[in-house]
Amino acid sequence: MPVIPLNSANDSRLEPYRHVKDRDLTGRQGLFMAEGKVVLERLFASPLCETVSVLTTPARLEGLSVPDDAPVYIVDQAVMDAVAGFPIHRGYLALGRYAPPQSLEDILAQTGRLRVMALSAIANTDNMGGLMRNAAAFGVDAVVLDSACCDPFYRKAIRVSVGGALVVPHYRLGAGQSLLEVLNTHGLTAYALSPAGDQVLDQIVPAERSAFLLGAEGPGLRREILDTAISVQIPMHGGFDSLNVATTSGIVLYHLCR
Amino acid sequence: MPVIPLNSANDSRLEPYRHVKDRDLTGRQGLFMAEGKVVLERLFASPLCETVSVLTTPARLEGLSVPDDAPVYIVDQAVMDAVAGFPIHRGYLALGRYAPPQSLEDILAQTGRLRVMALSAIANTDNMGGLMRNAAAFGVDAVVLDSACCDPFYRKAIRVSVGGALVVPHYRLGAGQSLLEVLNTHGLTAYALSPAGDQVLDQIVPAERSAFLLGAEGPGLRREILDTAISVQIPMHGGFDSLNVATTSGIVLYHLCR
Repeated sequence: MPVIPLNSANDSRLEPYRHVKDRDLTGRQGLFMAEGKVVLERLFASPLCETVSVLTTPARLEGLSVPDDAPVYIVDQAVMDAVAGFPIHRGYLALGRYAPPQSLEDILAQTGRLRVMALSAIANTDNMGGLMRNAAAFGVDAVVLDSACCDPFYRKAIRVSVGGALVVPHYRLGAGQSLLEVLNTHGLTAYALSPAGDQVLDQIVPAERSAFLLGAEGPGLRREILDTAISVQIPMHGGFDSLNVATTSGIVLYHLCR
Repeated sequence: MPVIPLNSANDSRLEPYRHVKDRDLTGRQGLFMAEGKVVLERLFASPLCETVSVLTTPARLEGLSVPDDAPVYIVDQAVMDAVAGFPIHRGYLALGRYAPPQSLEDILAQTGRLRVMALSAIANTDNMGGLMRNAAAFGVDAVVLDSACCDPFYRKAIRVSVGGALVVPHYRLGAGQSLLEVLNTHGLTAYALSPAGDQVLDQIVPAERSAFLLGAEGPGLRREILDTAISVQIPMHGGFDSLNVATTSGIVLYHLCR
C-alpha cells in the first residue's frame, strides 16, 4: 500500500472522490464508493472486489490492512471534506471495483446445496442495503436482481449493508429476463414471500437448491410470480399485515439458510 | 366528524399543523403527528390514542373513518403544503394524543402470558419505527423504553412503523429507573440479545412472562444487563456479526411471541 500524502483538494488523483454524492447518479462501470472503517475492512478482505484506492487522514492510517497494490491518499480532514463535498465524519473512503470471479451461470451451475435471494423491483436503497446485510449475515450464495432493482453498490446501500453488499455476489438480469425462468433453468425451487402466501414459513422445509423471492413493500411480488412459485407467508398478529422487506428477509433467511 | 373547509393557511385552527418538521423538536405533551392514509386508519382504530383533528384535501375525505368527535379540516393541497412547510404528498395529516388506558404497572401486574419488548438507548428514529412495526406485527403486549431511547412518537418513527407505534402501548422509564429492575419486580424473565450471547435463539423456550431486551447497534446492551439477563445470540455466517436492531427484533419476536 503506497502511502501518498496530498496537500491540495485539487490534486487530480482525488478526482474519483470529488462530490461523491453525485457519483451515484452517473455511470460507474462497476466502481463504487465505500465509507467507514468496518466497510473498508470488508472491501479489503472481499474476494469479489478490488480496492482501487483509499482516502483517509494521517491519524486513521494505523491498523488499516489495505491491499499491497492499492494507493492510500492521506489528506487533512478539511481537504477530505472539501473533495467529497460534505463532512466525512467517519474519515475513511475507498474506491472499489466489483469484479466477481464467478458468473451467475457458474454459481447456479454448481451442484449441491444452494441458497439464493432473488429480488424484484427493490428500488429503495435503505431496503437494498438491509437485504444485502442479511444475505451476508446468513450466508446466501448469490443475490439475483431483476432490472427494476436499484444498485446494491449505491454508496448508501453499501453503508446500510455494513459492507454485506461487498461480501455476497449479486447479479442483475437484463430488462427482458425473468427471475423465475433463470431460477427454474438451474433447478432451483422458488419460494415467494407474500402476506397472502399459501404456506406458512414454519412449515417450509427448503429444497436443497432454494431461492427466496422478495418484492417491494406495497405492491409486493407480481401475481404471476406468486402463482408460479411456492408462496409463503409470515403469520402476523391482529390484522397487522405489514413487515419491512429487509426484516422479512432476516426472518426468512434465518429460518431457511441453516 | 365535523367537516370544516378552510381557505387560508393562516387560519388559527391549522396552528398544530404549522411547520410539522419543527414540532418534533419541542415539547409535545403526548401529542403527535400522523401522516398517510394507512397510519391515520390505525390512529382512528387505536384504543391507545385520541384523534384530536385531521387535515386533508377534499378529494381524499371519502372513505375515511374519522371518529365522530374529531374535526376534519379540509384544505387545498397548496394550503396543506404551505401550512406543513413541505409538500405532503400523501395528502393526510392528523394530530393525535397518546392516552393509554393502562399504566405500565397495570399491564405488568396482569397474570398469565406476557410478551414485552424492552429497549435501551435506541436513539435512531428509523430503528425505533422498525422496532414498533415489528412489535405490532408480532403482538407484543407492551414496549418499555429506558430514558436514553428516542420517542416512538416522532413523526418519522410513526411513519416507519406504518402505525405500529399507535397500536402497541409503550412506556418510558425515568432517568434513574433500570429496565432490569422493572422487569424483575414484575416476575418477567429477561432475554438480552447480543452477538456474543451465551444461548442460541433456537434453544430458547421463552418463559410464560418474557421480556426481550435490545440495545443500540454498535455499543449494544450494557455489560451489566448482559451479565444479569439470559443473553441470547442469533448465529451468523462467516464472521459477519452484525444485524440491524429492527431486523433482530423481527427474528426474535417471530420466534418467541407465538
